[in-house]
Amino acid sequence: MATRRPPRARPETAAKRTEILRAATATFGAKGYNNGPLTEIADQVGMTHAGVLHHFGSKDQLLLEVLKYRDATDVEHFEGQHIPDGIELFRHLVRTAFVNETRPGIVQAYAVLSAESVTDDHPGRSYFQERYRTLRAEITAAFAHVCAEHGVDDPDGVRRAGAAILAVMDGLQVQWLLDPDDIELGSASAFAIEALVAAVLHPAPSVLGADDTPAAAG
Amino acid sequence: MATRRPPRARPETAAKRTEILRAATATFGAKGYNNGPLTEIADQVGMTHAGVLHHFGSKDQLLLEVLKYRDATDVEHFEGQHIPDGIELFRHLVRTAFVNETRPGIVQAYAVLSAESVTDDHPGRSYFQERYRTLRAEITAAFAHVCAEHGVDDPDGVRRAGAAILAVMDGLQVQWLLDPDDIELGSASAFAIEALVAAVLHPAPSVLGADDTPAAAG
Repeated sequence: MATRRPPRARPETAAKRTEILRAATATFGAKGYNNGPLTEIADQVGMTHAGVLHHFGSKDQLLLEVLKYRDATDVEHFEGQHIPDGIELFRHLVRTAFVNETRPGIVQAYAVLSAESVTDDHPGRSYFQERYRTLRAEITAAFAHVCAEHGVDDPDGVRRAGAAILAVMDGLQVQWLLDPDDIELGSASAFAIEALVAAVLHPAPSVLGADDTPAAAG
Repeated sequence: MATRRPPRARPETAAKRTEILRAATATFGAKGYNNGPLTEIADQVGMTHAGVLHHFGSKDQLLLEVLKYRDATDVEHFEGQHIPDGIELFRHLVRTAFVNETRPGIVQAYAVLSAESVTDDHPGRSYFQERYRTLRAEITAAFAHVCAEHGVDDPDGVRRAGAAILAVMDGLQVQWLLDPDDIELGSASAFAIEALVAAVLHPAPSVLGADDTPAAAG
C-alpha cells in the first residue's frame, strides 16, 4: 500500500498550513512539545483544535512538519541541494551562528525540541538522530577535502571534531538563550569552530595529556 | 519574615527524601519536568502524591532539590570546596566526560532539564543561569593561571573558550544519548577541550577567516 500523502494543497490551504507551522514553532519554542497545547496553537491562528488536526492529522505529525519547515527555512540546509564544499562548509556554519543571533524564537524551539527528543518515546527522536547523522556526514566530507589539501590523515580527529562542532553550536545556543548579554553566540561559535578545525589540520602537542608536562609556572 | 526551612530531618526522613530525589531524577530524565508526573515519582517510592508534597512542598521545589542533589553527587562540583586550579580544572572536566559515559540517567536528566529551562517561566531557569555563570567564572580563573604561565593575554579568547568548553560537553551529551554507538562522549569531549585550550594558549593563523587564503588544493 502506498504511503498516504496530503492532497495537493490549494493556495489558501498552503497559506493556512504555513500560518499554523509558524504558530506551532512559537508555542513549542516557548513551552516545549509535551507542554505546548494544540489549543494554544489553534487560538493563535483563529482556528479550533479540530481545525488544526484537519490540516496535520496529529500533534506528533505537526511536530515533524514544524521540524521540516524549520529545515526548509534554515540557512544550515542548503538551497538547491548545493552543500558548500571543504572549508566553505565551516564558514557556512559560522555564518549560521551569526544569523541565529537574529532569530531567538527558532533557536529556542530547536534547543528545546532537540534535548526533549532524548526523552522516552519522543516523536522527534528519529528526526534528530537522522539530522545529526546527516550533518556529521557532511562535516566529515568537508574535512576529507580540507585534510587532503593539508596532507593530514586523522579519521579519529575528524570524527570527534565533527560531532564537537555541532555540539558546541547547540550548547552555546542554550547558554545564549539563558544569558544573551553574557554570551556572544556568533563570535564564540566562530572561535570554537576555528579551534576544532585547527586541531585537526595543525595538531599541537597535548596540553592536558597525563604524560605531558605543561610549562612550569613563573 | 525568615525564609522557611525544612525542619531538621530524622534519619528515616533523610533516607526517604533521598529515595524520592532518585526517583524524581529518573522520571524527569525520562520525561522532562513538565511532562514528568508527581504521581509516577510517588508510585516508585510507594507513597502518595500528597506524601511527596509533604517532603518537598511543591513540584517546583522538588525540581530544585533534584538539581542540588545532582550537584552534590557530581564530580563536576568539587569535594570540600577545593576547585582544581589551572590546567587541573580542564583535566577534571575531561574526567567528568568519561565518568558521564557510565551514568546515562543523570546525563539524560541534565540534558533535558537544562534545555527545558529556556522555556517560558520554567522553575529551573535561574538555577541553570547561575550554574553556567559559576562554571564560566571557574574556567576563566583556571585560564588566568594557565595564560600567565604561557605569557598569553587574550580575554576575548578566554571568554569564548570558557563558554565553548561547557557548550561542547553539553551538546555531545545530547548526540551521545541519541546515538551511543556513534558518539564517544569521553574522547570527543577530551579532543574538544584540548582544542579549545590550545586555541587560547597557542593561537594559530585563522583557517576560516575571510581575509585568509587557505592552502590551495593539490
